[in-house]
Amino acid sequence: MRISSDKWTGKEVDKSGKFVRQKNRFDTPFGEEEGQLQVEAGRYRLLWAPVCPWAHRSIIVRKLLGLEDVISVGKADPKRPNVSRSDWAFTLDEGDVDPVLGIHYISEVYLNADPDYQGRFTVPALVDLKTKKVVNNDYFHLTLYFETAWKKYHKPGAPDLYPEELREEIDTLNDIIFREVNNGVYKAGFARSQEAYEEAYHTVFNRLDWLEERLADRRYLFGDKITESDVRLYVTLARFDVAYHNIFRVNKKRLRDYDNLWAYARDLYQTPGFGNTTDFAAIKKHYHIDCNPGNIHQIIAKGPDEEAWLLPHGREKLSENKI
Amino acid sequence: MRISSDKWTGKEVDKSGKFVRQKNRFDTPFGEEEGQLQVEAGRYRLLWAPVCPWAHRSIIVRKLLGLEDVISVGKADPKRPNVSRSDWAFTLDEGDVDPVLGIHYISEVYLNADPDYQGRFTVPALVDLKTKKVVNNDYFHLTLYFETAWKKYHKPGAPDLYPEELREEIDTLNDIIFREVNNGVYKAGFARSQEAYEEAYHTVFNRLDWLEERLADRRYLFGDKITESDVRLYVTLARFDVAYHNIFRVNKKRLRDYDNLWAYARDLYQTPGFGNTTDFAAIKKHYHIDCNPGNIHQIIAKGPDEEAWLLPHGREKLSENKI
Repeated sequence: MRISSDKWTGKEVDKSGKFVRQKNRFDTPFGEEEGQLQVEAGRYRLLWAPVCPWAHRSIIVRKLLGLEDVISVGKADPKRPNVSRSDWAFTLDEGDVDPVLGIHYISEVYLNADPDYQGRFTVPALVDLKTKKVVNNDYFHLTLYFETAWKKYHKPGAPDLYPEELREEIDTLNDIIFREVNNGVYKAGFARSQEAYEEAYHTVFNRLDWLEERLADRRYLFGDKITESDVRLYVTLARFDVAYHNIFRVNKKRLRDYDNLWAYARDLYQTPGFGNTTDFAAIKKHYHIDCNPGNIHQIIAKGPDEEAWLLPHGREKLSENKI
Repeated sequence: MRISSDKWTGKEVDKSGKFVRQKNRFDTPFGEEEGQLQVEAGRYRLLWAPVCPWAHRSIIVRKLLGLEDVISVGKADPKRPNVSRSDWAFTLDEGDVDPVLGIHYISEVYLNADPDYQGRFTVPALVDLKTKKVVNNDYFHLTLYFETAWKKYHKPGAPDLYPEELREEIDTLNDIIFREVNNGVYKAGFARSQEAYEEAYHTVFNRLDWLEERLADRRYLFGDKITESDVRLYVTLARFDVAYHNIFRVNKKRLRDYDNLWAYARDLYQTPGFGNTTDFAAIKKHYHIDCNPGNIHQIIAKGPDEEAWLLPHGREKLSENKI
């Protein structure tokens, strides 16, 4: 039986039909204090799936900061395994097993950490190689730890994605981006009433309109430098036209109908760390099949043309005129 | 149980997963000869559903020619009735019954005409009021009969939608429009293999590209005057962005991404007979619910904005410079 998106979000719907995302179970922070996770090269493995926006952001940040040799990654198949609950499978690897952890399914390391775990088995999941337990699946903070607690391992010249003087503003914008964009499209897609869907639809497009304005005269969300907020916005924009527009029914406009947002997204895509971690084929496969249970012949919508992501974006101009 | 689009097209799929539309069963022509249908005011009732492109064309032509007082119409609900085969219901009417024919379902007049009828119950269906039998459901020719055999009933100054001197060219173009556009989108939407889908997808967009060129320097497909071919193209264009783009996965471009085709479609929409017979709400309801069986919460995608159909099209200019 294939997984119905309806099934695995069943618990996450309120009375009015609104989608209410589950809380992350493993949220111990990294740090020096008692009970916190230790920062240590080679100790953790980051499990992700290229389809997933929440996981994608951690992979982008890992690349931008040059943490590739410090935190290894395991990649799950875009298609969910043939079981009737959420899980991710390592069927892209030889023998269908993650070569480092030796697991078939991500659920194994979740259940190692908590045999009574009842939530969805989500990516990103950071696994301690010593214990083979998930120690952190808190996508909201994981990248912030990479940017702060893991600083000693950053490559020379790594960008400061979370500069001290901007943290308050970045946190505020991240919260908006989470509620109205990243999770906003899911609220539209997983709504179980027309009202809940339309509320989410309007929220998404009102916020995109606002972002379109914001990006008219600055290259990135906070000016000349890429920050954590850009990573968070990018992962949703990259999935917008090929998946969310159709499958989550956010079809007022496409990304490519917004002049600034579309050029901004291409600018990021053409920056190492973004485009080379963006797998449109995997994204389409996941959303069009796993998130669309009525698609019984498993047809994957072909459009729109992806080559357009490589078109010149012209946004260098905005940098030159600014601080 | 809701109707699965898969169910009612089950018989119409070949080995490679391609959709092969059923032949029309009732195709007796109108005319003076023995065995032909008689042209007679007030004798027939045209059953249609605003969602259906094949039926829509006959309603547009009836309006353009001024046949409203000569051929009455019965309108079916955009949502199919709750039975597990194709049918159309008169649930928009008082008592859920067509006020003239006294039927609940269109299947009744099909079975009156042929108790052994095995095909889908389609609109348009022309019913002889004397016998309450379907006498013609041949959407490919029905409008041509209205234009030729029914000429004596045309309103004064009615357009000649099928001028003698253009018939050969119109027939050729109609055949292309049928195969590659009208039915092309269905071939994409009802394909049961990725290959069959992609073949249909490319056929549709190659033909739209060709039409975009053709409409660059002429107002309508055959110059200054609306013809039968424009009616046939319009009904698919009107459904493209709100339904086919998402549900049939023809998502390379939207209609509104084609400069000429989009202005041409607006020009027609703003012409009496076209826009005032186009019911976007009904169209969305049908395709997003009945043609998308995975949509179990029956959410109807809201976009894109319909008001854009009323924007100026600027195509009068093309008329002035021509014959």
